[in-house]
Amino acid sequence: MDVLKALYERRSIKEFDPMHKISSDDLSTLLDAARQAPSSYNLQHTKIVRIVDREMRKKISAAAYNQPQVLSASELFVLAADTKAWQKKTERCWQNVPEKIRNFILKSIPEFHQNRPWIERDEAIRSASLMAMAIMLAAKSMGYDSCPMIGFEQEPVKEAIQLPNDHVLVMLLAIGKGVKPPYPKPGFIPMEEFLFLDHF
Amino acid sequence: MDVLKALYERRSIKEFDPMHKISSDDLSTLLDAARQAPSSYNLQHTKIVRIVDREMRKKISAAAYNQPQVLSASELFVLAADTKAWQKKTERCWQNVPEKIRNFILKSIPEFHQNRPWIERDEAIRSASLMAMAIMLAAKSMGYDSCPMIGFEQEPVKEAIQLPNDHVLVMLLAIGKGVKPPYPKPGFIPMEEFLFLDHF
Repeated sequence: MDVLKALYERRSIKEFDPMHKISSDDLSTLLDAARQAPSSYNLQHTKIVRIVDREMRKKISAAAYNQPQVLSASELFVLAADTKAWQKKTERCWQNVPEKIRNFILKSIPEFHQNRPWIERDEAIRSASLMAMAIMLAAKSMGYDSCPMIGFEQEPVKEAIQLPNDHVLVMLLAIGKGVKPPYPKPGFIPMEEFLFLDHF
Repeated sequence: MDVLKALYERRSIKEFDPMHKISSDDLSTLLDAARQAPSSYNLQHTKIVRIVDREMRKKISAAAYNQPQVLSASELFVLAADTKAWQKKTERCWQNVPEKIRNFILKSIPEFHQNRPWIERDEAIRSASLMAMAIMLAAKSMGYDSCPMIGFEQEPVKEAIQLPNDHVLVMLLAIGKGVKPPYPKPGFIPMEEFLFLDHF
């Protein structure tokens, strides 16, 4: 499916066919596509936790105020991200570039992050959000619907997935076969509050 | 262009044809596609500042350590986001849904945000990052390359664009005609550090 068509047709869908399963081929395609999303310094902060176990789905459903898509979606991904990715074997992220470039980048990474704890969190959220959009559009192009979710209690989800202390939760992403057409798009703010020329 | 192809072929490009201009039709298509990206509670936190004035480009180039794409890209967008979008005329964001749903959502919005300053910033960054990915893929599908950038001094950019105090800077996004093929993808971390089943 064309990118623009996928962008216009992607909607946040809350009612999925609970019997539908995504084939392992499609799942691989989706996850491999997800990994093509960019991240700053190519640090690949994002982690996907696939929630497959039924009891785990129920725990997360309870934390998400019983929103129906948590249980009915074919796949439920918890997107998390590592705020300390910049300290972890970063040479792997640059293994395929000429040595001179690699050395320059590996030196820049700590300079950019150190003593700026706020940027560690921002970077983690940015990376996982870029990937989330990639997944939603890839899913749409493959015939699936999705629902990104931030309305859930963080602590029980962190506990359920055993989130490491240096990671942040970024969102839940439900993916499956929608069973009901969405409402019309709910409403746009005016263009002049979205687009500015040179300054606010 | 197909979504998966765009995802695989999108690369962060730093050398653009400085003479190329994006037509106003293409620019409109790109910006309208950008607005289709989701945001939580449809709050549309993201603001795009198009940097057109040459002196403004130079100021931002200086803040971005003279990275060449800031000056040579056909378009330079500063993506910012409003951390207080949840307090600003939110009824417009839900004007097209049935009243009962609108009322429920408009009541939920302050409940979700109030007394959680950290979520205001997270939400702003999430929304603008989702839109950034939408723009990069739409651009690719329209024959353009892009470069998302976070490596710049924030203060001079904030000052140049007169960023409101309740907004955050999320990234720079350069868009144009790449003039040089990119290096091979720099390197992936192993799948087992990306994908987890039910928990870490």
